[in-house]
Amino acid sequence: MDGLDKKILEMLKINARESFANIGKNVGLSAPAIGKRVRQLEDDGVIEGYALKVNHEKLGIETKAYITLVMHQGLSGRPNVLDKIREMEEVQSCDRITGDDCLCVLGYFKNNKHLIAFLEKMSQYGATKTSIILEV
Amino acid sequence: MDGLDKKILEMLKINARESFANIGKNVGLSAPAIGKRVRQLEDDGVIEGYALKVNHEKLGIETKAYITLVMHQGLSGRPNVLDKIREMEEVQSCDRITGDDCLCVLGYFKNNKHLIAFLEKMSQYGATKTSIILEV
Amino acid sequence: MDGLDKKILEMLKINARESFANIGKNVGLSAPAIGKRVRQLEDDGVIEGYALKVNHEKLGIETKAYITLVMHQGLSGRPNVLDKIREMEEVQSCDRITGDDCLCVLGYFKNNKHLIAFLEKMSQYGATKTSIILEV
Amino acid sequence: MDGLDKKILEMLKINARESFANIGKNVGLSAPAIGKRVRQLEDDGVIEGYALKVNHEKLGIETKAYITLVMHQGLSGRPNVLDKIREMEEVQSCDRITGDDCLCVLGYFKNNKHLIAFLEKMSQYGATKTSIILEV
Amino acid sequence: MDGLDKKILEMLKINARESFANIGKNVGLSAPAIGKRVRQLEDDGVIEGYALKVNHEKLGIETKAYITLVMHQGLSGRPNVLDKIREMEEVQSCDRITGDDCLCVLGYFKNNKHLIAFLEKMSQYGATKTSIILEV
Amino acid sequence: MDGLDKKILEMLKINARESFANIGKNVGLSAPAIGKRVRQLEDDGVIEGYALKVNHEKLGIETKAYITLVMHQGLSGRPNVLDKIREMEEVQSCDRITGDDCLCVLGYFKNNKHLIAFLEKMSQYGATKTSIILEV
Amino acid sequence: MDGLDKKILEMLKINARESFANIGKNVGLSAPAIGKRVRQLEDDGVIEGYALKVNHEKLGIETKAYITLVMHQGLSGRPNVLDKIREMEEVQSCDRITGDDCLCVLGYFKNNKHLIAFLEKMSQYGATKTSIILEV
Amino acid sequence: MDGLDKKILEMLKINARESFANIGKNVGLSAPAIGKRVRQLEDDGVIEGYALKVNHEKLGIETKAYITLVMHQGLSGRPNVLDKIREMEEVQSCDRITGDDCLCVLGYFKNNKHLIAFLEKMSQYGATKTSIILEV
Repeated sequence: MDGLDKKILEMLKINARESFANIGKNVGLSAPAIGKRVRQLEDDGVIEGYALKVNHEKLGIETKAYITLVMHQGLSGRPNVLDKIREMEEVQSCDRITGDDCLCVLGYFKNNKHLIAFLEKMSQYGATKTSIILEV
Repeated sequence: MDGLDKKILEMLKINARESFANIGKNVGLSAPAIGKRVRQLEDDGVIEGYALKVNHEKLGIETKAYITLVMHQGLSGRPNVLDKIREMEEVQSCDRITGDDCLCVLGYFKNNKHLIAFLEKMSQYGATKTSIILEV
Repeated sequence: MDGLDKKILEMLKINARESFANIGKNVGLSAPAIGKRVRQLEDDGVIEGYALKVNHEKLGIETKAYITLVMHQGLSGRPNVLDKIREMEEVQSCDRITGDDCLCVLGYFKNNKHLIAFLEKMSQYGATKTSIILEV
Repeated sequence: MDGLDKKILEMLKINARESFANIGKNVGLSAPAIGKRVRQLEDDGVIEGYALKVNHEKLGIETKAYITLVMHQGLSGRPNVLDKIREMEEVQSCDRITGDDCLCVLGYFKNNKHLIAFLEKMSQYGATKTSIILEV
Repeated sequence: MDGLDKKILEMLKINARESFANIGKNVGLSAPAIGKRVRQLEDDGVIEGYALKVNHEKLGIETKAYITLVMHQGLSGRPNVLDKIREMEEVQSCDRITGDDCLCVLGYFKNNKHLIAFLEKMSQYGATKTSIILEV
Repeated sequence: MDGLDKKILEMLKINARESFANIGKNVGLSAPAIGKRVRQLEDDGVIEGYALKVNHEKLGIETKAYITLVMHQGLSGRPNVLDKIREMEEVQSCDRITGDDCLCVLGYFKNNKHLIAFLEKMSQYGATKTSIILEV
Repeated sequence: MDGLDKKILEMLKINARESFANIGKNVGLSAPAIGKRVRQLEDDGVIEGYALKVNHEKLGIETKAYITLVMHQGLSGRPNVLDKIREMEEVQSCDRITGDDCLCVLGYFKNNKHLIAFLEKMSQYGATKTSIILEV
Repeated sequence: MDGLDKKILEMLKINARESFANIGKNVGLSAPAIGKRVRQLEDDGVIEGYALKVNHEKLGIETKAYITLVMHQGLSGRPNVLDKIREMEEVQSCDRITGDDCLCVLGYFKNNKHLIAFLEKMSQYGATKTSIILEV
C-alpha cells in the first residue's frame, strides 16, 4: 500500500460512491488505474465493503442504547451466541470487552417498548445493563 | 418513502457502491429512475452518505476500546468538548449516555502506548474508564 | 385542548375538588360550561382521575423506601410480576428503569419490621437494594 | 379517627371528587355530616389536599427518569437546594435517601433534549446518575 | 426514669463494676437506694447486662474484619440463619442492613487462616465481602 | 494467664458485675484470691474495663446506622479527625477499614433528623455512605 | 540472620547468579564462607530459590492482565482449584484477596485470543473481571 | 532462538543459579558452549536478569496487599509518579491497568501500621483501594 492508495482511501472515506474518474483527477491517474487499485485493496482485504449511512430517526428509530450483557456462566458453552446476537436486526455492533467478562451491544430500537422486548430476549443469555444514548 | 425505496435502501446497505443499473434490474426500474429516487432520498436526509468499511487491523490498528468519560462538573460549562472529542482521529463515535452522566467513546488505537496517550488527553476533561475490545 | 383547558387544569392541579363555579368565575365561563370541558378532558384521557393527598405519617407510616429489584433471569418468563407488585398495598409506584434491568419500587411501611417482611416477599422475585427516604 | 373516617378516606382515594352525598349514602350518613368529618380530617392534617391525575404523555411528556444527585461536599452549606429543586417544573418528587448521601429526583421531560438541559442545570449541584423509566 | 437514674447510668457506663456506695456518695443517696434503683432499671429492661471489655490482641486476636453477606435468595427461607451466625464464637455483632439486602458481620479472628475458614463457612449462606480493620 | 484466669474471664463476660465470691465458689478459690487475679488481669491490660449494656431503644434511639466515610484527600493531613469522630456522642465505634480507604462508623441516632444532622457534620470530612440497621 | 547475611541477600537480589567470590570480596569473607552462609539461608527457608527474569515480550507475550475470579459458591467445596489455577502455564501468580471473596490472577498471554480462551476456562469456576496491563 | 535455547531457559527458570556444566550435561553441550548461548540470550535482551526468591514472612513481612490508585486528574501532569512509586521499597510491582484509569500496586508491609503509613503517602497522588492478600 503506497501513498496513492492512501489518498484513494481518504477520498472513499468521505464518499464511498465517489466515481473512479473523480478520484483519478484528484490523484493524477486514469479511472481504470484507480479501478485496478481499488480492486487490489478489496482483494487484499483492506477494503471490506461500502456502507450506507442512513438517518435512523427518519426510518423510525426513537431509542438507541448501549447494552452490556454478562453471560450466565461465561460464553464457553455457547459458541454461537455471539453470532446469533450479531444477526439480530436491532444490533449495530456487538463486542466482547474487558472488565466484567461481557458483551457490549449497540442496538437501535423503534421505541422503548421495542427495547424492552429486546431486553427480554437478551435475558435468556445473561444479565443486561442498559445505557440510553441521549442526543439522538 | 414507498416499498421501492425500501428495496433500494436494502441493496445499498449490502453494497453502497451498487450500480443504479443493477438495482434497477432488481426492482424493475431503469437506472435513471433509480438515480432520481436515490437523489430524492439524499435530499430528504434519509441517506446521509456512503461509508468505507476498511479492515483497521490491516491499517495498523492493534487496540480498540470503549472509553467512558465522566466530565469534571458536567458538560454545561464546556459546550464544545463533545465536538472536540468527535473530531479526534482516534474517535469512531462519541455518545452521551444515561447512567452516570458521561460520554461513551469508541476509539481505535495503533497500540497500547497510543491508547495511553489518548487517555492522558482525555484526563483534562474528566475521569475515564476503559474496556478493551477483545476479539479484534 | 385550548388555553381555557390549560387554565382549568392549572386550577384543578392546585385543588382537585375545586367547584366548577369557582373555576368558571376565574376563567370567565359558567359552571356548566366548565363541567362540559372537564368531562371532555376526562373522555380524552387527559384527566385520568382525582387523587387524595394524605399525610401518611398520621396514618401510621414510619418508613418510606425506594427498593430496586433485579429479577432472577429477567421479567420475560413472569409477565404478571409487575402487576402483582403494583397491587401490593405497600407499593406507591413501580417502574421499570434502565441501568441494571430492574424495577424501582416506592414503598410505604408501618415500620422497619414491615419493610423487612416486604423484602422477604420480594426476594422470591429477585435481589433487592433498599434506600430509606430520610426526611419523612 | 374512627371506622367511618376510614371508609370516607377509602372512597376519596378512589375518586377525590366524589360528592359528599354519594359518600353519605354509602356509609349511612347525611351529606353535611360527611362534609363536617372531611373538614375535620383536613383540619387534623390527615387530608393534605386533592390532586389531579393527568396523562402526562397526552400533555407532551416523552421522557420520565429517576435522577440521583450526589452533592459536591454535602447539602449542609446549601440549605435551600432541596427547596429549589422541588420547585422546578420538571420535578415530581425529590427525596433524600440513604446509601451514597444523595437526592433521588423523579423528573418528567418533554424529550431527551429537555432531560439533557435539566442534567446540565443539576451539574452545578453535584454528580447525577440517570435511569430512564421504560414503560411510559 | 428521672435525673438520678441518668446519673447512675452515666457512672455505670464509665465503670460497670462501680460500687453502689460510690455511686451513692456521688448522687447523694445511700448504697441500698442505689441498688434498688439499679434493680428497677434492670427490671424495666433499660439495663440489659454488664459486659467485659477485654484487649482482644492480648487474647490472640490478630485479624478483625467487617464482612457483609448477601444471602442466596434472601433470608426468608432460612429463619434461623441470623441466629446461627450470631452464636458463632468469632462473631461480635451481626446486623441486617439496608442497601443490598445483606448482613453486616463484625468478626474477630486469630489470624488470616482463621478468617479464611470463617469465609468458607459463610459461603454456604451467600456471597461475602470482607473489609479488614486496619488499626488493630 | 492460666486456666483459672480463663474461667474468671468467662464468668465476667457473662456478667461483668459478678461478685468475686460467686466466681470463687465456681472455680474453687477465695474471693480475695479472685480479686487479686482480676487486678492482675487489669494491670496486664487483658481486662480494659467494664461496660454497661443498655437498651438504646428505651433511651430514645430509633435509628442505628453504619456510615462509611471516604475522606477528601486521605487522612494524612488531618491526624486528629479519627479522634474527633470517636468522641462524638452518636458514635459507638469508628474503624479504619480496607477496600476504599475509609472509616466505618457505627452511630446511634434519636431519629432520622438526628442522622441527617450527623451526615451534614460528616460531609466536611468526606463523602458518606449510609446503611440503616433494620432490626432495631 | 546477621548484618553479613543481609549484605549477601542484597547482592543476590541485584544478581542472583553473583559468584560467591565476588560477594566475598565485597563483604570481606572467603568464597567458601559465603557458600556456607548461603546454604544456611537456604536451609532456614529464607532463600526459597533463584528465578529467571525474562523479557516476556521477546518470548511472544503480547497481553498481560490481572483477572479477578469470584467463585461460584465460594472455594470451600473445591479445595484444589487454587492449586489447579496456579499450575496453569499462563498464570504468574494467584492470590486470595479481601473485598469480594475472590482470587486475583496475574496472567501472561500470547495475544487477545489466548486471553479469551483462558477466560473461557476460568468461567467454569466463577465470574471473571479483567484489567489489561497497559504499559507492556 | 532455537530448541536448545528453550531448554536452557527452562532449566534456568527452575533454578537460575544452575551451573553451566549441569545444563550442558542435560542438553548435550559443553559448559562453555552453554555459557556462550546464555550470554547471547542476555545480549538479545531475552534474559533480563536473575532474581532471588526470598521468604518474605521470614524477613518480617506480615501484610501483603494489592492497592489500586486512581490518580487525581490523571497521570499526564506528573510523568515521574509511576517511577517514584516503583522505587519505593514496599512496592513489588506497579502496573497501569484498564478499567478505571489507575495503577495496580503490589506492596509488602511489615504490618498493618506500615500499610497505613504507605496509604497515607499514596493519598497525595490519588484515591486508593486496598485488597489484603489472605494466604500469606
